[in-house]
Amino acid sequence: MKTWTVDLSAEVANLKRSVMRDLLGLAVNPEIISMAGGLPASELIPLDSFRDCLDTVLARDGPRAMQYSPQYDPLREWIADYMNERGVTCELGQVFITNGAQQGLAILSRLFLDSGQPAVIEEVTFTGIQQVTVGRGAAVRTIPTDLGTGADIEALQMAMQEEPRPRLVVLIPDFHNPLGVSLSGEKRADAAALAARYNVPLVEDDPYSTLRFHGETVPPIKAYDEAGLVFYLGSFSKILFPAIRLGWIVASPDLIPKITALRESFDLETSTLLQRAAAEFLVQGMLEPHLLRLRDVNRTRSGALLEALEQHLTGLATWTQPEGGLFVWVTLLEAIDTWEMFEAAVERKVAYIPGASFAVHGDHRNTMRLSFSNLQPEAIRVGVARLAEVIRDRC
Amino acid sequence: MKTWTVDLSAEVANLKRSVMRDLLGLAVNPEIISMAGGLPASELIPLDSFRDCLDTVLARDGPRAMQYSPQYDPLREWIADYMNERGVTCELGQVFITNGAQQGLAILSRLFLDSGQPAVIEEVTFTGIQQVTVGRGAAVRTIPTDLGTGADIEALQMAMQEEPRPRLVVLIPDFHNPLGVSLSGEKRADAAALAARYNVPLVEDDPYSTLRFHGETVPPIKAYDEAGLVFYLGSFSKILFPAIRLGWIVASPDLIPKITALRESFDLETSTLLQRAAAEFLVQGMLEPHLLRLRDVNRTRSGALLEALEQHLTGLATWTQPEGGLFVWVTLLEAIDTWEMFEAAVERKVAYIPGASFAVHGDHRNTMRLSFSNLQPEAIRVGVARLAEVIRDRC
Repeated sequence: MKTWTVDLSAEVANLKRSVMRDLLGLAVNPEIISMAGGLPASELIPLDSFRDCLDTVLARDGPRAMQYSPQYDPLREWIADYMNERGVTCELGQVFITNGAQQGLAILSRLFLDSGQPAVIEEVTFTGIQQVTVGRGAAVRTIPTDLGTGADIEALQMAMQEEPRPRLVVLIPDFHNPLGVSLSGEKRADAAALAARYNVPLVEDDPYSTLRFHGETVPPIKAYDEAGLVFYLGSFSKILFPAIRLGWIVASPDLIPKITALRESFDLETSTLLQRAAAEFLVQGMLEPHLLRLRDVNRTRSGALLEALEQHLTGLATWTQPEGGLFVWVTLLEAIDTWEMFEAAVERKVAYIPGASFAVHGDHRNTMRLSFSNLQPEAIRVGVARLAEVIRDRC
Repeated sequence: MKTWTVDLSAEVANLKRSVMRDLLGLAVNPEIISMAGGLPASELIPLDSFRDCLDTVLARDGPRAMQYSPQYDPLREWIADYMNERGVTCELGQVFITNGAQQGLAILSRLFLDSGQPAVIEEVTFTGIQQVTVGRGAAVRTIPTDLGTGADIEALQMAMQEEPRPRLVVLIPDFHNPLGVSLSGEKRADAAALAARYNVPLVEDDPYSTLRFHGETVPPIKAYDEAGLVFYLGSFSKILFPAIRLGWIVASPDLIPKITALRESFDLETSTLLQRAAAEFLVQGMLEPHLLRLRDVNRTRSGALLEALEQHLTGLATWTQPEGGLFVWVTLLEAIDTWEMFEAAVERKVAYIPGASFAVHGDHRNTMRLSFSNLQPEAIRVGVARLAEVIRDRC
């Protein structure tokens, strides 16, 4: 077969694989303590109860659970109820089921943003958000994120005012990936008000808020949305399990037909079997006890990580204090480059994600993301001790 | 909530929902004999054996079947073997798992085609192919499809020669949706040669070839591809069941990283649970006996449909003679508009897809697509008799 010579589209010229997903491969070497992947705790995945749900659905629905099918309304209804509990006025007709929150990002970015047009995202943000903006050749404007109170709303206002107006804003308000920080309630109201004032769609990417283990719940930005300009993205990947591949969009009802058309062009629909089994799990009330266990475990593990950082890295680093989610963001001395350090870390059998892979401009080279959710406290302690050795070698 | 005032992207301006998928809703009214949807036979869906596969996977792989995961190599390997059996030289590294063939279309169209650039598709073709070309604002050139031998390869050559050169060609070689016709072997070799000669990627959309119930197997276009310019799309939706949401791309190995990046930006990955359960089904040899049953049933049902057409519509219509797949294409007298007739048909409790919904230019208004795969022969006979009454009323 000859070497490839055909031109690819201009659209994919900027598109890069997520480094994070390559690093996930390290998680399979059992000798390496990997704090890289954002995986939920494997031993808490509700294997048996989910198998029961699959059996129930197959016995009850038979071939209807296996055919092409419209979105499964009992699942949409559960989600609408859940959103209402969280302070978002939401009807079933506003809920659109996706294959995880990433598909929601892909759909909404296509819906509002053509290649070359301006979008506003956080300067350090989830790679999937970069893929649907930077990766598509959008003219990206970045705003900083305060490590205590979340995205800089004054910077957002300036980015909104600039002409031409942005076509899209994407924020991660809860337990930010990778920063671990949450947007304060006041700033959420301000963000929704800015979207309304400048008539710019704001996408709220929220895979983590249900995983709060400290402090008080804050309503989503969508709860402050009176203009119908905030689009909420939810996900079951972290609270059920990733292979469920289920997420949702909450949007204005009048946009659902366009969202449906876009999604059909992507991959027709989401497996009705997985939708039905998830709905069974949720409607039978299996989520709440599962979440209690998840939050307990995450609280213990985040505590172990923060204590180990305190013990081993005081004076060498600073870090965020997450109230939920999966991640802690660590900032080392300016001179340390976590990409350059990465090979030495893997040799010492510990892994993390270099922070620069989340930085739109490739800076923040002295930072890293650590995940605590899929490691036992003892492994976390050993991992941080190994990491500290690698860091001290560089100081 | 105020009325929506934000501009949508130019890209989605041309995007329409598939009428077909709206018409699928009719299938749920049990009084209506619907020949509209392209659904596999519900009663043949391997419910019990697939549940066994799920159980095996959950018991054997546990949380590994539920986490984020790379593509499942045993499934890729089975597919590579299957492609080799079909005459395509193919290694595991060339197989990329998608959420059904539609996702393959979406990925490849993004990979090669920017908005406004030329693409070549058949004048009458699957709506999903139109969505990823016309629906994205491509400058579409159409070629006719002969109802005996498939796509017009001379027209393809002319469309290829035209400047600027097309960035992409999409053909459906086997049991065409909606036409039911197959591309002759000779034309397949010619199509591959044209792709090589003009250096244009050719996408071969093949969800149906495994469902041959008459005649001799013809190798895919990809089997004639020496230049690495043919991209094969396969699907398990029609041979296992649609809710499995699994398909695959066979591509040059050097393009797999770019395909992976694009796919990650869409929805990260395909459920490893469904990949593993499907692999279990395939590796355990459960597909072949299932296919024998499927082909038997489809042969009987297509026979019933062709006989009923002969009995009720001779002189009023002509139709294609499929050797496999799910569809027959019916052409009525010029004066009859199958969209206008549709309401009367539904009143008479029979449904089809108006052919114009598959026509890129909206013509072919005297045609319809009939599906035989998910109806008992008796229902097919009654359905065609009803249809004939509706048609005779218009003659």
